[in-house]
Amino acid sequence: MVKLTLVKVGGKIVEESESLKQLLADFSKIEGYKVLVHGGGRSATAMAAKLGIESQMVNGRRITDAETLKVVTMVYGGLVNKQIVAGLQAIGVNALGLTGADLNYMRSEKRPVKDVDYGFVGDVKEVNADILADLIAKGVVPVLAPLTHDKAGNMLNTNADTIAGEAAKALAKHFEVTLMFCFEKKGVLMNENDDESVISEITPALFEKYVAEGVISGGMIPKLENSFEAISAGVNKVIITRADLIHTEGGTKISG
Amino acid sequence: MVKLTLVKVGGKIVEESESLKQLLADFSKIEGYKVLVHGGGRSATAMAAKLGIESQMVNGRRITDAETLKVVTMVYGGLVNKQIVAGLQAIGVNALGLTGADLNYMRSEKRPVKDVDYGFVGDVKEVNADILADLIAKGVVPVLAPLTHDKAGNMLNTNADTIAGEAAKALAKHFEVTLMFCFEKKGVLMNENDDESVISEITPALFEKYVAEGVISGGMIPKLENSFEAISAGVNKVIITRADLIHTEGGTKISG
Repeated sequence: MVKLTLVKVGGKIVEESESLKQLLADFSKIEGYKVLVHGGGRSATAMAAKLGIESQMVNGRRITDAETLKVVTMVYGGLVNKQIVAGLQAIGVNALGLTGADLNYMRSEKRPVKDVDYGFVGDVKEVNADILADLIAKGVVPVLAPLTHDKAGNMLNTNADTIAGEAAKALAKHFEVTLMFCFEKKGVLMNENDDESVISEITPALFEKYVAEGVISGGMIPKLENSFEAISAGVNKVIITRADLIHTEGGTKISG
Repeated sequence: MVKLTLVKVGGKIVEESESLKQLLADFSKIEGYKVLVHGGGRSATAMAAKLGIESQMVNGRRITDAETLKVVTMVYGGLVNKQIVAGLQAIGVNALGLTGADLNYMRSEKRPVKDVDYGFVGDVKEVNADILADLIAKGVVPVLAPLTHDKAGNMLNTNADTIAGEAAKALAKHFEVTLMFCFEKKGVLMNENDDESVISEITPALFEKYVAEGVISGGMIPKLENSFEAISAGVNKVIITRADLIHTEGGTKISG
């Protein structure tokens, strides 16, 4: 199968024009088919504040009431997404910005209220990768905003890591997919105080060992669990790395 | 050639949820291939006001400074566009929201400063209709926001009537295009005080006659001039009608 690299970048890097420019240049250097998934949380929080809407976070997730849904739809689907698409077009990458509603490529359902009412947040139920795969094979580079829809007329807020994982799994039927998560370090560190102590590869056995030893903890645990899940679902490999290394072979490789 | 209907609707109708719902239902009844072009000026003005940005209009056009460009990118490309796309998907229309940057389908240049500095407003220079035509032939319904890009990384604000006209002309190479402009009346009126006095057809000769007689005046003159220009450029017909009549044969037909 033909290779496809799906890169997920967080909000910060795409929200400042200089770092965005560098990111897009690095992204454009990735050979072969590619997809970019972006966040935009900082911009959403800033815009909400300007509009007098308080951003409420629970477990790192945004509580999305009706007014906040409008803000994220504007900011993720409009402002951030189009800045990226225009930036990629400027360097010859034929980008196409998408939310889950566009082409109905990702359908979700509003998260049921349990302990927390997250509001208009969507849990992914269906990914229609065929039409995406078709566009990708024509040289189009999808730029995916962290928004889905319920196919009943409502947009829903969906975490960018989730969008990346779900898109990667669905596209694995069509391509040999590398899923790349960017964060602020060069990779998963053996020693959190040593930025150069990047673990080159993590297998399920090593993961259990590192968790038991406390080497891996906190938010990295669900990130790695999601990575193993993606690999089980057909994704070829997952790489956790820093945004400026996406076009290199660096970072931590997660393997099945 | 296969028929394609391109409908342009103004801001008001797509900005209120009830009228939007009705519009999308009517739009979905149009047989054959279709494209929807939308405005969103009222929402942009309202959002700008909430953000403390004053909307300045000259000759009916928005002066688009850097902050206003962000607002229209968010509102047109995000909020309004995605509400329409999600609404169409809910009734089984496979919509795809696009700005000119997406797929580089419409490139513009920042309007040169003459008497008025319109700011970040784009004059259309190039329409790449092939990829749009390809998607349309697969059953995709493009939903075009009034935004273009300069292929140098910048989004630009572009009037929705212009987007509709330019897209219609470029798509006329691939389809037999009907371009439909919606406004608040059933069509062009012979007597402005009689809403039922719709002129069924306007030829260039009749246009000259009606202008000379004062039957047609004001903003309708450039609208009709643009319509004749579209027909000269290969558009099959232009219809001026009310939004609730788009799926009927009603309105004023402009013919070459």
